[in-house]
Amino acid sequence: MPVPPPDEAVSVPPGELASRPPDEVVPPSGDGPATARAGEALASVRPGKALAEAVRGVLGGLAAGAVRRGGPVPAETPGALAAQVARALAEARGEEALGRLTELLAYGAADPTDPACAAHLHCPPLAVAVAADLAVSALNPSLDSWDQAPAATELETLLLRELAGLAGYPGTAAGVLTSGGTESNVMGLMLARDRVLERVTGEPVQLRGLSGRVRPRIFASAAAHFSVRRAAALLGLGEDAVVAVPVDRELRMDPAALERALREAARRGEPPVAVVATAGTTDTGAIDPLPECAALAAEHGAWLHVDAAYGGGALLSDRLAPLLAGVELADSISLDWHKLGWQPAAAGVFLVRREETYASLARRAAYLNPADDEEAGYPSLLGRSLRTTRRADAFKIAVTLRTLGRDGLGRLVDACHDLARAGAAAVRAHPRLELHAEPVLTAFLFRYLPRDPRRADEVNAALRRRLLRAGLAVVGRTELPEDAGGDHDRAPGGGGGREPSGGRGRVRLKLTLLNPHATVADVERLVGLVAAAGEAEEAGLS
Amino acid sequence: MPVPPPDEAVSVPPGELASRPPDEVVPPSGDGPATARAGEALASVRPGKALAEAVRGVLGGLAAGAVRRGGPVPAETPGALAAQVARALAEARGEEALGRLTELLAYGAADPTDPACAAHLHCPPLAVAVAADLAVSALNPSLDSWDQAPAATELETLLLRELAGLAGYPGTAAGVLTSGGTESNVMGLMLARDRVLERVTGEPVQLRGLSGRVRPRIFASAAAHFSVRRAAALLGLGEDAVVAVPVDRELRMDPAALERALREAARRGEPPVAVVATAGTTDTGAIDPLPECAALAAEHGAWLHVDAAYGGGALLSDRLAPLLAGVELADSISLDWHKLGWQPAAAGVFLVRREETYASLARRAAYLNPADDEEAGYPSLLGRSLRTTRRADAFKIAVTLRTLGRDGLGRLVDACHDLARAGAAAVRAHPRLELHAEPVLTAFLFRYLPRDPRRADEVNAALRRRLLRAGLAVVGRTELPEDAGGDHDRAPGGGGGREPSGGRGRVRLKLTLLNPHATVADVERLVGLVAAAGEAEEAGLS
Repeated sequence: MPVPPPDEAVSVPPGELASRPPDEVVPPSGDGPATARAGEALASVRPGKALAEAVRGVLGGLAAGAVRRGGPVPAETPGALAAQVARALAEARGEEALGRLTELLAYGAADPTDPACAAHLHCPPLAVAVAADLAVSALNPSLDSWDQAPAATELETLLLRELAGLAGYPGTAAGVLTSGGTESNVMGLMLARDRVLERVTGEPVQLRGLSGRVRPRIFASAAAHFSVRRAAALLGLGEDAVVAVPVDRELRMDPAALERALREAARRGEPPVAVVATAGTTDTGAIDPLPECAALAAEHGAWLHVDAAYGGGALLSDRLAPLLAGVELADSISLDWHKLGWQPAAAGVFLVRREETYASLARRAAYLNPADDEEAGYPSLLGRSLRTTRRADAFKIAVTLRTLGRDGLGRLVDACHDLARAGAAAVRAHPRLELHAEPVLTAFLFRYLPRDPRRADEVNAALRRRLLRAGLAVVGRTELPEDAGGDHDRAPGGGGGREPSGGRGRVRLKLTLLNPHATVADVERLVGLVAAAGEAEEAGLS
Repeated sequence: MPVPPPDEAVSVPPGELASRPPDEVVPPSGDGPATARAGEALASVRPGKALAEAVRGVLGGLAAGAVRRGGPVPAETPGALAAQVARALAEARGEEALGRLTELLAYGAADPTDPACAAHLHCPPLAVAVAADLAVSALNPSLDSWDQAPAATELETLLLRELAGLAGYPGTAAGVLTSGGTESNVMGLMLARDRVLERVTGEPVQLRGLSGRVRPRIFASAAAHFSVRRAAALLGLGEDAVVAVPVDRELRMDPAALERALREAARRGEPPVAVVATAGTTDTGAIDPLPECAALAAEHGAWLHVDAAYGGGALLSDRLAPLLAGVELADSISLDWHKLGWQPAAAGVFLVRREETYASLARRAAYLNPADDEEAGYPSLLGRSLRTTRRADAFKIAVTLRTLGRDGLGRLVDACHDLARAGAAAVRAHPRLELHAEPVLTAFLFRYLPRDPRRADEVNAALRRRLLRAGLAVVGRTELPEDAGGDHDRAPGGGGGREPSGGRGRVRLKLTLLNPHATVADVERLVGLVAAAGEAEEAGLS
């Protein structure tokens, strides 16, 4: 059904190319007749039927799968769903494959457009962004050379200039689209490693490698994303190079503790490669004190990388943007438009304040950016990215920004912020639920309080799986850092006058509200589902 | 035009959700009425109009842009095209943005479905793959946790098992989808670094970092992809850690030279982290002698990584698969389905022969893969990837494989191989063109021979830009490695009985034939365009 039979896939009426003189008209390609068999049609963007038919089949499959699912996630165990996937892959063949597998992907999805799907920084994408991404798939530009992506090369350059301005960066900024915060964090820390260590050791790290004579350090809060440690491992510095700076109860880095850690490292002769400040931790949206982090990094000669993969979305909102004051002081920034930006993944952005700090990534490849082509005016983005082939993820962001404007996107951010506050209020109002802290952005932590506090972690973890299995809700789950008040007797306080609950355990549930079309009633219903699942779990119902 | 007015975007007929009992029906979301303004519709996959309308707008914009372009690339200088992009970004607003920017992206594309677009490993994607990618954009699954991608998690797992089998790997294999060969090469070399150096130094590199006490080495041919050196730099080993092993005229690694290089390193006490064998160099498709590389790597305790980003496509063809004999001996492999696999980027695949060699990437994140969820049967792919958020790029590959089968894809590979041989024959038949070597896969190098051989490099580089500027053709350009016969007096021979031309210079033009629907006449016409552009360039025409 979705894939047109060969005889429908072959028509490229020559008349439709008549906008150029006959001798410049290229022969029909893409949907050409010579070799077309089922499914072999190329995604020709000239007027033709193959792509349109296939897309129609996908839209039908998506709708059918969603209807069959009904709720936010299929009411299946992982094993039962896996068996369906295995069967479909074993049976689907030829023209039916696209429709059948699409329906299954839709049925077996955790659907972020459903208000009860609120676990992760996993946003419901805008229709306009998804459609723009289709244009990118069909044209398949690759940003490693101009002659694979003429317009896309310029479009990415201009979009990055605009996003740099949004972050308060000056005209010297540069950047690139990435697969997400994890890759952006690697990039920031790699540039930091190369710049700081070359200054300290006099050796170019990209050429000579790490010398091992020094023990470089990276400073990040105990609540920073695990990708910071992962980046240190990838870069050859080792996870142990990351110093976990203590946080307050809201999981913000304690600047006094950062200062102590930096001084201690200096005393030991361990060069401070970077301070990583988080603007919007994954779990609570906590924003480290950016101006203080910037001042301390500058004082100690460290690179400041701000991981604003989540919190960067606040830059779109007049209400929340002040929370990110100081981000413009960073040497580099991670922003993810597939989090608080309503883009399909991937839509990561990496920015540096000064283009020249990109130096250690510059590369010359004879087949991609020969010097004489650059002299002749052909720009190259090869030295901007760790990747070579690179999809034009900038396009969907540019289209979205132009369609909604910053104001329109800001309204979506504010709507989600409102939903988070409403959700936190519903938690506070419920006798069996405990709020960890008020939402900063659009997420908050809480937990169900079982009658036996020793069972808190177990019950919360299990009730989440119960909701998943029943197909009722996708709720997040995490654990508090050891020093962040998980055990309330050890909490450093600052909880806004809340009573210590006396409960033990570090497991917390999480709601991440990213669906601006959800209503307060939706969120209240979701909170109610959690409480009901906790009671059922505690009662030992199966 | 492309984005529907708000009043069209709001209808989610409640009846269409009636397949579940009323109390489980979730409130209308996605296209919900409450907050809908222009462009704010989510890509709800439930029956609704917003996504379908936006997609229709994109298909229209794609067609209009392609008609305006007419040829393989717009007949524009980079500056003139950039000005159009800047103007469109400055002017496009609201509902017209999607259509206008899509048309511009299509107009300003290098269109791989046009037979005269044949520079890079930049394939024309299949309609079925592009449509499948739309399903992924709309559902937005992210593979860093099961509860963001229930069906997609299993689908990727099964697809990778199948691809591992295609490569001849045993059931112990594992892998992950990547952004491309560059990321896959980083992964292979990171696992190699961690495994080999831990054996040598007794220290876990991921935790402790590189010690600097040893000087690790990576062995790759002089024609290996530049991403190998880049990976060494990223990993903290430094580009200088890569030993460039000499190649023969066809740019295949010389196994005797590899053996000498490995012995020399051993003599100096430099641990051999990895041998990187290339199966399909970017420029000529050269395939290193895989069995010999495997034997030497094993003898010296080095990891064998095979970069088959391009040549992996040969596994689909009965005719060409024998060229990759020995790939199954590799510890890890890079395969790119966005090269010889007709997928839109990204569709990279990284495979390891033994799952346990993945160990150094394993991670536990409390919010993504808590131990008790894994014990309860929820699988996690987090430890498979360097990324966190990760788009379900496996889906389009799975759909394509099911639609066409290996046989169907193999026919496309063979068609491109035939085209390359026809193109090489056309070059050989032309008095002013010189073939570098017969095509191995679907690409070959050649050049125009100007009357003054000292101008060869300059004329070839310029004629390529001339074709680009005129919008007539997108032809590749590269430079031969210094020791690979660029200067024919120094060539090591092996050129299949060809006369040395006496010409000097290393610049070569390249045709990469990836459009299976192109005809021999298309390729002959393209070769003719190159020769004509060379004559025009030589005559100093502007």
